Order: sequence, then structure tokens, then C-alpha cells
Amino acid sequence: MPPAASRPTLEAVAARAGVSRATVSRVVNGGAGVRGPLAARVRAAVEELGYVPNQAARTLVTRRNGAIAVVVAEPQSRFFSDPFFAQQVRGISRELSAHDNQLVLLLTGGPADRERVGRFLTSGHVDGALIFSLHADDSLPVLARKAGVPTVIGGRPTWPDTDARRRTLYVDCDNRGGARDAVRHLLGLGRRRIAHIAGPLDQPASVDRLDGFRDVLPDTPAALVAEGDFTPEGGARAMEALLERVPDLDAVFAASDVMASGALRVLRTRGRRVPDDIAVIGFDDMVSVAEWTDPPLTTIRQDIEEMGRLMAQLLLRTLELQAGPDGTAAASPIITPTRLVVRASA
Amino acid sequence: MPPAASRPTLEAVAARAGVSRATVSRVVNGGAGVRGPLAARVRAAVEELGYVPNQAARTLVTRRNGAIAVVVAEPQSRFFSDPFFAQQVRGISRELSAHDNQLVLLLTGGPADRERVGRFLTSGHVDGALIFSLHADDSLPVLARKAGVPTVIGGRPTWPDTDARRRTLYVDCDNRGGARDAVRHLLGLGRRRIAHIAGPLDQPASVDRLDGFRDVLPDTPAALVAEGDFTPEGGARAMEALLERVPDLDAVFAASDVMASGALRVLRTRGRRVPDDIAVIGFDDMVSVAEWTDPPLTTIRQDIEEMGRLMAQLLLRTLELQAGPDGTAAASPIITPTRLVVRASA
Repeated sequence: MPPAASRPTLEAVAARAGVSRATVSRVVNGGAGVRGPLAARVRAAVEELGYVPNQAARTLVTRRNGAIAVVVAEPQSRFFSDPFFAQQVRGISRELSAHDNQLVLLLTGGPADRERVGRFLTSGHVDGALIFSLHADDSLPVLARKAGVPTVIGGRPTWPDTDARRRTLYVDCDNRGGARDAVRHLLGLGRRRIAHIAGPLDQPASVDRLDGFRDVLPDTPAALVAEGDFTPEGGARAMEALLERVPDLDAVFAASDVMASGALRVLRTRGRRVPDDIAVIGFDDMVSVAEWTDPPLTTIRQDIEEMGRLMAQLLLRTLELQAGPDGTAAASPIITPTRLVVRASA
Repeated sequence: MPPAASRPTLEAVAARAGVSRATVSRVVNGGAGVRGPLAARVRAAVEELGYVPNQAARTLVTRRNGAIAVVVAEPQSRFFSDPFFAQQVRGISRELSAHDNQLVLLLTGGPADRERVGRFLTSGHVDGALIFSLHADDSLPVLARKAGVPTVIGGRPTWPDTDARRRTLYVDCDNRGGARDAVRHLLGLGRRRIAHIAGPLDQPASVDRLDGFRDVLPDTPAALVAEGDFTPEGGARAMEALLERVPDLDAVFAASDVMASGALRVLRTRGRRVPDDIAVIGFDDMVSVAEWTDPPLTTIRQDIEEMGRLMAQLLLRTLELQAGPDGTAAASPIITPTRLVVRASA
């Protein structure tokens, strides 16, 4: 329930002054475009009633709540167990705090939740949304766009940039370039039978990393690529399948550190030495994973916290541009660089 | 920005019909208490303008957003690393989803964040709040109460139940009774020099567990009680201090599993066998901790997820009662039972 129930409202001031709410708003916020006598009448009403513009009134004028939604369209268990989200949220939170914006975290589970999240997003409680939806489902971004809620997506969306109707701001790392660096590093070590454990191929990051792998090794037989699911178990299963199909493979590029950790476990169980027999390289440089594996993991680093910060920055910039005189100016997606971090596994 | 900007508003209908917004609301939602001719005029205006009550209008009428804030007034790093929060949020989410309410998670860091969270809480975006503020600071609950935002606190608040001005709904487990069970279990094993690693004593749960310990062992010398901070490191430091002061202690009751895990590490390093030399019992039955320690931890179980569910239920019930004919009916705090879970450490 609104806190101002017992305080004089904007409506009360408007009624007392015999003007519209919009006029009261304009006067209270500087009086631009309101004739002198009218403005004086409004000021008198404000004084008489002891009206104090509250947050809701400020919102009416600035059309800003000072609140940004972060939507995680993934199961909650994943949100709490995958350090990726904690790092992104930390970066987002840092940037939003610096600009006195409240981070409003909306967790979703099933499709029913998603509908409810859509309702909240489009009901004027937040000024914009940062959406993480790793799979091919774009229902929330579409909903937000239709409702005019500015949105930035975490990671390249599944639809092509060239589709203007669905043009979307996003922040992603250079997945394809990073994957190329990983494979080149393995080639540089003299490896010649290099396998790839891909992420789920309904996620753009997985596709981009596979594309980067193929950029460098276009003639790789299908037997050397196995699809995982970004979990340690998925990485382990993929590693087992690869060893079954190509017993003499000498290197593996896993599309995530978490999958690489599962692969390392399988290699240890099978008595394959890393990196002597098989070199292993991951992707992400997830601190709590890459540094703790045995041996510590060589990987491709993406700055996850910084990407969160950039998402927030891009959204706030978009809100500014929309509020500015040239309301049609548009910001652009951001691709952050990756870099090779050499530890012991490759 | 509100999605309905281009759709006819409640205000437009009110203006067209020449009545107040409140009257339009009442007619649109059943017409109770509106005279026939007036109601007819409003219905005509609704038809003419093609007005469809939207979420915001529904909110005005029912005074419900269908959204509940969960506020965690702890550093974000703690929120993501302490499984306690994940379990509580899971329980809360389950209950809110079942009643089609959106969980709106507000993370706070420093005092500046807290002010901003207060602003969001009291600006009419949510119908109520579930607040976790483990320390003696009650600024957010007080703010929420003043703004008329129904609130349920996670854990007994620091102020006494008897302070009617600050009467607060909360859900907590029977910390004191659980602590008594822990100490009695150690006594039953024949232990006679039983130490206690307390939590930070600015938190009611810590105080209650210490009180339960003293209920059973009122003559315990101060040397057998050390204060920790609910971290493994704090538990380790407290264990070292206790061994220093009372080298022949034969049992430890730690006020949390996490602190017990730190204590176990110290005992192992010092060559003290658990439970042979020193029996150890924890509190919480935090699945990811108690089952993984070496040896597995005997502990006092509290059903953390269920407590989250009950918090949500209590808040929704409170909202119902307030909306009902007897708006003054009040719900009561809930204390959930604990139980001893015997594993290997005591």
C-alpha cells in the first residue's frame, strides 16, 4: 500500500488549484511551460496542503523509479550454485549503486513464473531490465520491448543482429575469438588430435565457441566434438564419449571450466596424465573452479563481473538517451575481449 | 515507463464521466456503494473510451501488486556463499509462486543501499516485505512499519516481543530448545567439560542458543564459552582459544554447522580424535556442510526451507486479514521445532 495515503497527494493539489496533475507536476519540478498566474495558484495549493513530492510523484515526472530489474530466467538452483550469476550480479550491483539505482532481482522457475515476471516488469515498477535467459526462449525480452521497457540482455541473443524488429542491446564476451585462442594454444603445444566439449547448442555462447574451434580446425571430424550441458557431470560424460570414439586424442578444449573439471576427473580415473597425455583447456576463468582443479586449469578468461557492470552501464545510458532531447539516439551492443590464462593443464 | 501510456487511463474515464477516480475504481470492480445513475455514467465512459483495467488499476483497487519483497540486509558475498539464504529463498519462492505472487529480491550492501531499499519498499511497488537483517539494526523493519508495509522478519528480532509499539511478525526456530537438546545429548554421552562456540552475540539466534546451553549447564565457567562469527574461520579461532584455555575439554557445542566445520579442522590438526577425545555437535543441519565434514556432523536440525515457506505464508495471511472485514485481526509469530540428527561426531 502506498506510504503517502495519509499525506496530501498530487491529485489533491491539482483539485485544490483546479488544474491537471500534469500542471502540478511541472510546477513542482521547476515550472517549465506553465504560465505565471497558473504556477502561482499551484504553489499556493502546495503550500496550503503541505504537499511534499514523494517518490511516486517524482516517478510521474521523471518517469523514473530509480529501480532496475535483473531477471534470471533459469532455475533457482542454478542461480545459487553457478558462480557466474553471483559475479554478474556483483558487477551490476556495483554500477547501479554508484548511480543510486535499486537492483530488483526477479527469479523465475517455470513458464507460469515467467508470465508473472513479465507482468511485474511491464507494470511500471522498474525503469528497465537486465535479462539473463540462456536458452533460445526470447519471450521476456519480446514482452519487455513491446511494453517499452528498455532492456539489455546478458549474452548475445539467439536471433540475428540484422533482424531490426528484434534489435536488442546486449553485452557478451568475444566467445568466438576466445575459442580460437584456446585452440591455437593447443596447436602451439604440438597437439594434433584436439577434441571439443561444446556447451548446449541451443545457447549462442556454445555455438560461438564451437564456431571459433572450427575456424582454426575446419577439418575436425564429428567424432572429436561432443555436446555437454555446462555441468561437471555433462563434461565427464562428454569426455567419456570422446575417449571411446578417439582413444588417442591428445587435447581437449572444453567450452566451460565447469565442464573441464568433469573432464579432468574422468581423465584421472582413466589414468591419463594431464597435460602430458592429454592437454585440457577451459573457458570462463571461473575463479572458484579453474584455480582449484587438479592440475589447475589453463583457460580463456572473460571478465564476468565487468560484463555485469557494463550491462548496467549500457542500460542506464539508454535511459539517459531516451530522456534526452534526441530520444532516438541508440546505444550499441558491447563485446568484451577475452584472454588466455596459462596454468598447468595445457 | 508505464505500459498503458497509449491506452485510456482510469483518469480519462473519471474525467469523461465527471467523477472521481475512486468512483471509477469501485464501478469497474463491482460497483459496491455507487448509486445507479452514477454507475451507469461511469460504464458509458468506460465503453466510449474502450478502457481496460490494467495491472496498475487493479493495484489501485485491490491495493495489491501481487509482489512481495525479500530484503537481505547482509553483504552480497554472504548472500551468495551462505546456503542458508538459498534454502530460505527456495521456501519463500515456492509459497509465493503457489499464490501467484512475484518474489522481488532486494540486495543491500552498505547503509546508502539500505536507504534506497527503504525508498523502493515504501513506494508502492510491493505489497509486503520479508526482511532478513541478522544484526541488531532494525531500521528497515521500522521504516516498513511506518510506511504501512506489512512485514515478516526472518528470525526473532532484537527487540522484545512485549514492546507493543514495535510488535513484529517473525518466523524463527526454537533456538533455545534446540541448544538444550544438543547439550543434553553430550551429557548423555558422558561428557562433563562441555564448551560452547557461540555465534556473534548481537544476533538473537546466537543469544538464544547460548541461553539454551546455560539452561542445562548454568555453572559453566566463562573459559568454556568462546564467541565466533558464523564462519569456518571464526569457528576455528574459537576452537583454538578454547583448547588453549581448557586443554582437557571433552565436548563442543558449536552454534552453527559452519563454525563446527572450522572447529573440526583445528581438532584434526591438533591430533584430537572426534568423537573419541572430543565430541562435536553443530546447529542448523546445513546439508552441504553437516554431511560433508569429516567425521559427518551430529547436529540440531532446523527446517530452513520450511521456515522460508512459513514466512511467505504468514505475510500472505496478514495481507488477507488486512483486506478482510475484520482489518484488525492479527497473525502471530511462528516458532518451528528443531530436532537432533545423530551422525558420527557426537
